[in-house]
Amino acid sequence: MSKTLIFGHKSPDTDTICSALAYADLKNKLGETAEPARLGAVNKETQFALDYFGVEAPKFIEKVGSEVDAVILVDHNEFQQSVDNIKDVRIAEVIDHHRIANFETKDPIYFRAEPVGCTATILNKMYKENGIVVTKEVAGLLVSAIISDSLLLKSPTCTKEDVDAAHELAAIAGIELGTYGLDMLQAGADLSDKTAADIISLDSKVFVMGDAKVEIAQVNAVDIAKVYENQADLEAEIAKVIEEKDLDLFLLAVTDIINNDSEALALGKGQEKVEQAFHVTLDNNRALLKGVVSRKKQIVTVLTTEFTK
Amino acid sequence: MSKTLIFGHKSPDTDTICSALAYADLKNKLGETAEPARLGAVNKETQFALDYFGVEAPKFIEKVGSEVDAVILVDHNEFQQSVDNIKDVRIAEVIDHHRIANFETKDPIYFRAEPVGCTATILNKMYKENGIVVTKEVAGLLVSAIISDSLLLKSPTCTKEDVDAAHELAAIAGIELGTYGLDMLQAGADLSDKTAADIISLDSKVFVMGDAKVEIAQVNAVDIAKVYENQADLEAEIAKVIEEKDLDLFLLAVTDIINNDSEALALGKGQEKVEQAFHVTLDNNRALLKGVVSRKKQIVTVLTTEFTK
Repeated sequence: MSKTLIFGHKSPDTDTICSALAYADLKNKLGETAEPARLGAVNKETQFALDYFGVEAPKFIEKVGSEVDAVILVDHNEFQQSVDNIKDVRIAEVIDHHRIANFETKDPIYFRAEPVGCTATILNKMYKENGIVVTKEVAGLLVSAIISDSLLLKSPTCTKEDVDAAHELAAIAGIELGTYGLDMLQAGADLSDKTAADIISLDSKVFVMGDAKVEIAQVNAVDIAKVYENQADLEAEIAKVIEEKDLDLFLLAVTDIINNDSEALALGKGQEKVEQAFHVTLDNNRALLKGVVSRKKQIVTVLTTEFTK
Repeated sequence: MSKTLIFGHKSPDTDTICSALAYADLKNKLGETAEPARLGAVNKETQFALDYFGVEAPKFIEKVGSEVDAVILVDHNEFQQSVDNIKDVRIAEVIDHHRIANFETKDPIYFRAEPVGCTATILNKMYKENGIVVTKEVAGLLVSAIISDSLLLKSPTCTKEDVDAAHELAAIAGIELGTYGLDMLQAGADLSDKTAADIISLDSKVFVMGDAKVEIAQVNAVDIAKVYENQADLEAEIAKVIEEKDLDLFLLAVTDIINNDSEALALGKGQEKVEQAFHVTLDNNRALLKGVVSRKKQIVTVLTTEFTK
């Protein structure tokens, strides 16, 4: 029997995990065999959602095994964010909401990217298009993904489609959006047991910008200052990553989920690009990015512009 | 007022022209301003369809002007097949049915690629999704595109969705599929007034395969031998193109629309890749490729495999 794996990006976040689970559910209900998988540890925010709705995390894979016929990528398309042996496997589909880059296939495939705030919003639409009813559990996963990616509908990436989907899914899931959402975000913002190495890798992505290789990590927090109490440790870990991956820049964004700002810590020879892109001056390698909460829309775009000038 | 241009690939074929026209029609009916355009001359096959349904060709553009806010690509995504200044313009959407490669955006966009035989088949679906009725003229354009890309539903790229769409659209357009289809293909296969330079550029695309740059031209013919009467002229023109564009390989496929085979003429230092890919021996730089009618599915794929080994 042919085997298809569905997974999101490395350093999985709630959208990546929940979209893999939901799309596998949809595929199965359409009579296709597909299994969800993940490329990294489940973070606390995602675990909160999984526990709340009684759903098990997808199984962890290090690479795609030879018994797999095809893979479906959700919530990402750039190869450097995907499984290490992505170039050796057949990609059957992509469902995503990010920019398209460093992606290539030999054959035509089903590729669906839409400029919405969350992959889960597209999946909610796909359930409808296929006439499949979303269960309470799947609705819970999908709305959790939207809350996560949109920082409770407050990120500039959040579209009307995301807002509508979130309300619709919250009703099916039987939750009060604001209460559940803040509980879930706070569960994710609990960094008390995290080492510096954890913090910079929890939700981290590598981007190719012009000739530069840039890694951008983001963590949510209730108290930014607390995260930076160990700045020296964070910097030491970041320096290691820059060395290992030969990065031009590493930017850590600590995002305040109550006030919706981010405090950035930037290291690497591309530091000045951060100053130019955000019109700030780094002080002790840090700068407050007012109103910045979206890596995709407020960090990747302006840095790409700066690195490709 | 914001201005959006919709266009297909260089060396436009019937799908590229008709999909640009149809998608602009759909956008306008949805209340969005969008204008169709083309990047090259209208070929005889396409002109037959336009004349039959009384539709004017989109306007020709050499590059995207500064008054344009965004572009929508139909029937292609690879930048080298697009307008020359594609990297300087904002791409809002892509609707395509080809492999994805050499494509990149800075922001998330609407990207819809499906592994069907023709862009027009996707557009037919989009009319339905949006609840817009396809007029007789637009149905005529869309079915012409499907006939062209599927060689009257005989190409291996042709899916059940294409077949269903073709029959449905033929009824709206008021044509008998077989009769109209053969007339249209034969109009396109009339190469009597074409120079050697015309023949190798009528429907020609450049592909990047691994480190190699490969151009593949295709023409339909009723009598293959007649096209190769002027082989020396064809080779002289091809040699010029190889020199100009620094190609590793130029392959011309002359496709017999009655018997559904192609006779290839291959020049360039990658000649042996053709022999390996198709398990043939070039004789006088030529080889018969039995049953090969689809550039996308039967030529690009196997050559890419060969060049990336």
